[in-house]
Amino acid sequence: MALFDLPLDELEHYAPRVPVQPDFDEFWSSTLAEARLHDLAVALEPVDNGLAVIDTFDVSFAGFAGDRVRAWLHLPRGASGRLPVIVEFAGYGSGRGLAHQNTIYAQAGYAHLVTDNRGQGQWTVGDTPDPSPASGTGPIGGYLTRGITAPGDHYYRRLFTDAVRAVDAVATLANVDASRIMVAGASQGGAIALAAAALHPAVFAAMIDIPFLCHVDRAVRITDRLPYREVVDYLARYRDREGVALRTLSYFDGANFAPRITTEALYSVALMDTTCPPSTVYAAYNAHAGPKEIAVYPFNDHEGGGEFHRVRQLEWLGRVLSRPSPGVTSS
Amino acid sequence: MALFDLPLDELEHYAPRVPVQPDFDEFWSSTLAEARLHDLAVALEPVDNGLAVIDTFDVSFAGFAGDRVRAWLHLPRGASGRLPVIVEFAGYGSGRGLAHQNTIYAQAGYAHLVTDNRGQGQWTVGDTPDPSPASGTGPIGGYLTRGITAPGDHYYRRLFTDAVRAVDAVATLANVDASRIMVAGASQGGAIALAAAALHPAVFAAMIDIPFLCHVDRAVRITDRLPYREVVDYLARYRDREGVALRTLSYFDGANFAPRITTEALYSVALMDTTCPPSTVYAAYNAHAGPKEIAVYPFNDHEGGGEFHRVRQLEWLGRVLSRPSPGVTSS
Amino acid sequence: MALFDLPLDELEHYAPRVPVQPDFDEFWSSTLAEARLHDLAVALEPVDNGLAVIDTFDVSFAGFAGDRVRAWLHLPRGASGRLPVIVEFAGYGSGRGLAHQNTIYAQAGYAHLVTDNRGQGQWTVGDTPDPSPASGTGPIGGYLTRGITAPGDHYYRRLFTDAVRAVDAVATLANVDASRIMVAGASQGGAIALAAAALHPAVFAAMIDIPFLCHVDRAVRITDRLPYREVVDYLARYRDREGVALRTLSYFDGANFAPRITTEALYSVALMDTTCPPSTVYAAYNAHAGPKEIAVYPFNDHEGGGEFHRVRQLEWLGRVLSRPSPGVTSS
Amino acid sequence: MALFDLPLDELEHYAPRVPVQPDFDEFWSSTLAEARLHDLAVALEPVDNGLAVIDTFDVSFAGFAGDRVRAWLHLPRGASGRLPVIVEFAGYGSGRGLAHQNTIYAQAGYAHLVTDNRGQGQWTVGDTPDPSPASGTGPIGGYLTRGITAPGDHYYRRLFTDAVRAVDAVATLANVDASRIMVAGASQGGAIALAAAALHPAVFAAMIDIPFLCHVDRAVRITDRLPYREVVDYLARYRDREGVALRTLSYFDGANFAPRITTEALYSVALMDTTCPPSTVYAAYNAHAGPKEIAVYPFNDHEGGGEFHRVRQLEWLGRVLSRPSPGVTSS
Amino acid sequence: MALFDLPLDELEHYAPRVPVQPDFDEFWSSTLAEARLHDLAVALEPVDNGLAVIDTFDVSFAGFAGDRVRAWLHLPRGASGRLPVIVEFAGYGSGRGLAHQNTIYAQAGYAHLVTDNRGQGQWTVGDTPDPSPASGTGPIGGYLTRGITAPGDHYYRRLFTDAVRAVDAVATLANVDASRIMVAGASQGGAIALAAAALHPAVFAAMIDIPFLCHVDRAVRITDRLPYREVVDYLARYRDREGVALRTLSYFDGANFAPRITTEALYSVALMDTTCPPSTVYAAYNAHAGPKEIAVYPFNDHEGGGEFHRVRQLEWLGRVLSRPSPGVTSS
Amino acid sequence: MALFDLPLDELEHYAPRVPVQPDFDEFWSSTLAEARLHDLAVALEPVDNGLAVIDTFDVSFAGFAGDRVRAWLHLPRGASGRLPVIVEFAGYGSGRGLAHQNTIYAQAGYAHLVTDNRGQGQWTVGDTPDPSPASGTGPIGGYLTRGITAPGDHYYRRLFTDAVRAVDAVATLANVDASRIMVAGASQGGAIALAAAALHPAVFAAMIDIPFLCHVDRAVRITDRLPYREVVDYLARYRDREGVALRTLSYFDGANFAPRITTEALYSVALMDTTCPPSTVYAAYNAHAGPKEIAVYPFNDHEGGGEFHRVRQLEWLGRVLSRPSPGVTSS
Repeated sequence: MALFDLPLDELEHYAPRVPVQPDFDEFWSSTLAEARLHDLAVALEPVDNGLAVIDTFDVSFAGFAGDRVRAWLHLPRGASGRLPVIVEFAGYGSGRGLAHQNTIYAQAGYAHLVTDNRGQGQWTVGDTPDPSPASGTGPIGGYLTRGITAPGDHYYRRLFTDAVRAVDAVATLANVDASRIMVAGASQGGAIALAAAALHPAVFAAMIDIPFLCHVDRAVRITDRLPYREVVDYLARYRDREGVALRTLSYFDGANFAPRITTEALYSVALMDTTCPPSTVYAAYNAHAGPKEIAVYPFNDHEGGGEFHRVRQLEWLGRVLSRPSPGVTSS
Repeated sequence: MALFDLPLDELEHYAPRVPVQPDFDEFWSSTLAEARLHDLAVALEPVDNGLAVIDTFDVSFAGFAGDRVRAWLHLPRGASGRLPVIVEFAGYGSGRGLAHQNTIYAQAGYAHLVTDNRGQGQWTVGDTPDPSPASGTGPIGGYLTRGITAPGDHYYRRLFTDAVRAVDAVATLANVDASRIMVAGASQGGAIALAAAALHPAVFAAMIDIPFLCHVDRAVRITDRLPYREVVDYLARYRDREGVALRTLSYFDGANFAPRITTEALYSVALMDTTCPPSTVYAAYNAHAGPKEIAVYPFNDHEGGGEFHRVRQLEWLGRVLSRPSPGVTSS
Repeated sequence: MALFDLPLDELEHYAPRVPVQPDFDEFWSSTLAEARLHDLAVALEPVDNGLAVIDTFDVSFAGFAGDRVRAWLHLPRGASGRLPVIVEFAGYGSGRGLAHQNTIYAQAGYAHLVTDNRGQGQWTVGDTPDPSPASGTGPIGGYLTRGITAPGDHYYRRLFTDAVRAVDAVATLANVDASRIMVAGASQGGAIALAAAALHPAVFAAMIDIPFLCHVDRAVRITDRLPYREVVDYLARYRDREGVALRTLSYFDGANFAPRITTEALYSVALMDTTCPPSTVYAAYNAHAGPKEIAVYPFNDHEGGGEFHRVRQLEWLGRVLSRPSPGVTSS
Repeated sequence: MALFDLPLDELEHYAPRVPVQPDFDEFWSSTLAEARLHDLAVALEPVDNGLAVIDTFDVSFAGFAGDRVRAWLHLPRGASGRLPVIVEFAGYGSGRGLAHQNTIYAQAGYAHLVTDNRGQGQWTVGDTPDPSPASGTGPIGGYLTRGITAPGDHYYRRLFTDAVRAVDAVATLANVDASRIMVAGASQGGAIALAAAALHPAVFAAMIDIPFLCHVDRAVRITDRLPYREVVDYLARYRDREGVALRTLSYFDGANFAPRITTEALYSVALMDTTCPPSTVYAAYNAHAGPKEIAVYPFNDHEGGGEFHRVRQLEWLGRVLSRPSPGVTSS
Repeated sequence: MALFDLPLDELEHYAPRVPVQPDFDEFWSSTLAEARLHDLAVALEPVDNGLAVIDTFDVSFAGFAGDRVRAWLHLPRGASGRLPVIVEFAGYGSGRGLAHQNTIYAQAGYAHLVTDNRGQGQWTVGDTPDPSPASGTGPIGGYLTRGITAPGDHYYRRLFTDAVRAVDAVATLANVDASRIMVAGASQGGAIALAAAALHPAVFAAMIDIPFLCHVDRAVRITDRLPYREVVDYLARYRDREGVALRTLSYFDGANFAPRITTEALYSVALMDTTCPPSTVYAAYNAHAGPKEIAVYPFNDHEGGGEFHRVRQLEWLGRVLSRPSPGVTSS
Repeated sequence: MALFDLPLDELEHYAPRVPVQPDFDEFWSSTLAEARLHDLAVALEPVDNGLAVIDTFDVSFAGFAGDRVRAWLHLPRGASGRLPVIVEFAGYGSGRGLAHQNTIYAQAGYAHLVTDNRGQGQWTVGDTPDPSPASGTGPIGGYLTRGITAPGDHYYRRLFTDAVRAVDAVATLANVDASRIMVAGASQGGAIALAAAALHPAVFAAMIDIPFLCHVDRAVRITDRLPYREVVDYLARYRDREGVALRTLSYFDGANFAPRITTEALYSVALMDTTCPPSTVYAAYNAHAGPKEIAVYPFNDHEGGGEFHRVRQLEWLGRVLSRPSPGVTSS
């Protein structure tokens, strides 16, 4: 795919005015407060993952509306003490997968929480339904238009709340260093990580790869790829709902979360990414209020930096975690 | 699309053994009994459809679990007395549309109920959500895999129950001749009409076009087109669920409803239909227990007989309705 | 499909210099004069459309070169007096269809003439051949390159002349108010309506949707979709004919008809329309010399405003027709 | 493309009953008689082809209805005496091209007539219009459905008659040995050559490659590729015309011409040919009444034997022409 | 993708006669003997993989013609004693990847050798060139046609020899139990594993997933997917080489290796696999001469059993390895 | 394909700074010097091409590293004296074809050398392998990434050297006028002709059509079509090699050869060419240091001027060759 978005030198200074509603913060604080009325009720069950060097637990906790959300917790076998933890969110259509599938951060010596996405599970297996009655009507397929006529009904309100509760949950675990909680994800996972980093003060650092759901009102006009295309298809049918739909999505826009994040972050972007166009990624990155760096992959589409970026992430994690913990006071 | 299924002479005698569970009838009778515990609560509101010769009402009634289901009722303006009624079910991804969109049977002089499909509304506008918590996990997109691990949770249990309640609802209307209720639909609409005709004794006749959801265990093996492909995609991911998934779908299989239908019916089939392959249509048609005829379109794909078949339907309706009403006793 | 043409604020002021030949008006006046040498010979036959509230007549009249052109005339049953009439032209590859297919304006209380396109009839059935010997050589498929080497031979000379004669024909009908003749059409139908509104002084108002054949010399350079692509394919083969081909097409360019139209019009445009790009629509709209308004559909491709725009059209028709007729003098 | 038709050993014995009308021969004899009422009026103009070893003439003659048909005549420069001639017919959508484009048989030492296809000219340039008024209505694109409702109106009646007249024309040329006229063509060109060989007694031999228009009633059911698909698309719209359309096409079916050919022929077939499926080619080949051989290309789609088959053709021509001329009596 | 090959009950008994040359065994014994003239020269370098629980070594050894071949050796950190080893071969177009990418068998407690494919490296990074001069001419792309005119020149002679030498190499390693060498691979990797298991007596067991290069003379006729399509494309151009090409490929056909394998094996097959059709997999499986089982995935295309099959493999490995080692004698 | 690159008036003045390494000239002079250490060893064998007016010889000579390179030499039969010669290079994936396939310049009265491309031969048959060991690793398919990590290893070093040696070879032939050697080619053939014209002082004139491999660092960013896409695919995998890869390709960039060419040239460009975008062609054309003209085809994709441009070439050749030969001194 050829370059189709802004050139890199413009991207580096791209600072669009992304619409945000005045009650954005209130919306989220009340949403989280409401969710926290439910007992978190973290449960852990050891599972047989078939592996010799990684221990895996089937974790569940109360997410949005108290709905049970599942995750895998992977620990390097034989590790002692409290480990830094990476809470990883999966991409669009993916669940937590099978127990042995994604253990990379545990292999690297960290606690690794692989969360389910409620109601998802096409590309990797999922175990968490989305029992909300607020599904709305609209296009077949996808999550982006579920409940799009009201922020309170929207699917991503539930999913992002689950993510914040996942951070709540790991903070309670015996093997985890609650002062070193990192969030991570690619594509939809990056969008979730942006929300979690903005909404949960305990997040220590974030890894945001080719994030989805950023600068949505631009994205829906410059790409015709799924999942953004779901919004286009919806508005092509419901021609009278552009205002209400884009207003709803603004509550979940990464470019609105980014200025509310003060923790350190490593982003990545692909300049030929037609699924999450680079200008939408930079709209979030340039607004990020904490220390930050970004890896640029000039010839990649939405696969992004892939295995090369993994190397960079492992190196970055080592570097970031070698700094004094914010929870440790020298005396 | 070239011919890819059985030749016509084999189709005409095709009588496969379609799996059916022993509690099929019990499943449906208890499902309907439960739904009928909710007050039907039919409501009618006149709407401005912009038309001079058709009156349209916004109808709602209690469907599955008492959820409100919407429909349009069209009447030829100035009609007096009780009219035969066609209850029409929409295809996959479609809702009832806007009020002026589909008035064909009212133009032809009948009462015409155009029902919504809960949670649908991509190809035509929908107004009825599916508030059920039983959505399950699974592939992005589609309704076929929602709740596929248990018949009681499956989406089509709710949708078919809505259809039966739609028949309940029209029977209460002042302008409608309750002894002349017909059900109709194409593709998914044909599947719904099959269910309604089998499950509701008040149905007088049925028009079943290129029906979806018939002989599912064959369909998923001979076509890779959506929506059947949703099942294939699901089983390609959840490789351990073939048994449970196909068992669930058997409760909604038109080939299991057809032998339970004794009313008269007009079917249609297209021999190059790769969405609803002809052998799956004949599996239902050949099992249909009432008087029947079928229009065969040799060179059509899933568009079927289209406007030509509409002519045949109008002629067939006139013929069927000219017979003595079952509700009329000569004396 | 993402936005690919000019942004909306530029479109609203887009006023390109569209090439026009000095004998444009002479070409058309002599063409029409010649056609009118043939007796119009309007014929009406009632047909059985299977409908109870609409009467349909099979109409024919002498079009270009006196060739017989067919149309359906729909009237609301029982209407009395002279009705305003909508003369509707069909899109590319479509004929008048079957008698019951498109009755929307008759349902709305108007006389409704649905015309055939000579030689067309792929998407809906057609009944009018194009017996002209002036077909030329060139690419397989399509009408755009038929006779492209000379304006006098070009297919659209014949088709647009048929349209003018259709207006002549409806003006003679007993049930029609000849002072309230409206023309309408989408895509190719919009191109025909533009021509008819410019060429026939009896046209009272026009509805022009996502019109084809506007600002052709730009269209063939910015879209690779059919039907404009037929011109590209032709010039890719006949590399020496760019001048003559574009000169010929300028005689049929809506952007050259628009400044010659003084009647009121409702346009529509879709900003993601890759078949009839928005700048080519605005090239006509901005040049339209009469009262005008335009409905903008930001997320639609060539399906345009669809059923939502129909609602707007019915409302607009009511508004426009409530004004004093030009044929009525107050005294 | 994988094998999709019958296996080779079945093909070699494939002898379907191809429908033929009782007046088939009468249809053609009267058609040709009528065409021959027009003066053949062969005209030759030398043209500058830019070549040093080939002389080219722009030939024209009276085809169907006396319409002027164009062709190139290529001669090896400096050839003396009367040369055997190959009359070559072009494929679907092709004209005679430019004067230097196709000279292969002249390079090989023969006279070479490259004929135009009336109204065609997309893939190579054409110079011959199809001025017939009998175009009919129907699908956009293609020639197969032009006039499909009556054999007398069908496009191929005109095109095949042109071909017979082309043979008439070459027989009059000073440089040509009229006892050694060969016809040749691939795909549509093969269909034309079959017709010419059956209809013109002066044809000495024929080269028929991957011929189109053979066993049409099977072809339209086993392939969805153009051009056969034009018939499918037509019948998918005009659902009531299967009988009349296939009856019309039977007058132009190569499998009906083949049993009427007694001259020697070289055929070729490709077993993965989805445009002209191998069983349809064998339906003609197996019915061919004269001496014959066939080159089989097992892994080719519609490109067939290409440059390898050209080598075989040149060898075959040398062999066939070394036999005593039918016009030479030994004494 | 719908079912397109034989039904399962026929597959289970499918025993085609796959062509094999009389010197097949001699070809391979001399090939290997020649390769073993080169010093194996195994080299190991520890690398930083960024992981805490896996140690990785950059391995190289002398493959075909003594060319250096690279691999990763992964060991569970802290393991002591000699470990069973899985030698894994990568799929078409893949190299060994980066050091952290594929460690699954080491995570499971085994030694894990991930080998490079010479000259490959599109889907995962490769580090091993193919310096052979025997590349031949032919279609762009792919390995299947490199050297296809002579078995001695063919690419897979080199690649399979590398695989045998990889087994030679692991047998020399200090951490490896040479009596417990397993080979594994999917698609092309399965083809290589079949060759290695047949050609190397030290192989203890094999895991063969959806193998490529089996029953090639059938495969090239029933699928048009790459990579088999490379052969079709080659023979479509080089129409005179069917015999020589298929003869060459017979030396590398898994269905010829399978009857020469007596070790235990776990196969997998996907019934909707259009890349490696199920009948070609069963042609090898049914001929396999050792103990065997096969996992059947009815709704999968070439992704096969994926993560579900991994679970089965880990379970199978545990079961197979719990049996007495062939190298251990009880006394 | 719509216009996607710069408008024509900008193209005509487009003069980008194309990166070039300081040792560019040294790289090529040493490369050629090294190749010329091998005896050229031109061999000619007459072949039977089946033609009567063209004589063809199978030519071979020592190319890069002394590897044997094949070509066809075509001569008009009976020509006497030394003829001007056109050395023609084939496009991507093509070889010299069969002996009768491409004789156009010999038909026009010139000597015509049709060269093979080493290792190629998909679209037309090839007879010359590429026995170099320097193939590297990387993406499946294509020549552009073979040896991309070092200029000395790159495939095009070998291919361009073969081209220079082809010119050396024709200069030795008895029938050829060594003062009138022309090079020609389209696409990859144009790239080779650019290299040969720059690197060989005996080249008298050049015909460069829609050349590939010009301004590569722009091309890989503005088109996603093959073959440029091979570079994109390579860099999408090997994300750390952008610098080294583009540096290597700069040694083969036509925009770097063009300023080194002082002979007369005819170029052609297609404005809708998505394979070799027009700005990359103009980057070479505008830098060409000799007399030049360019044919612009506004509506063509990569097929360019085709048969129309052939006419222009034959005319241009006649004009250029009518000038006094540089090898002829007037006295």
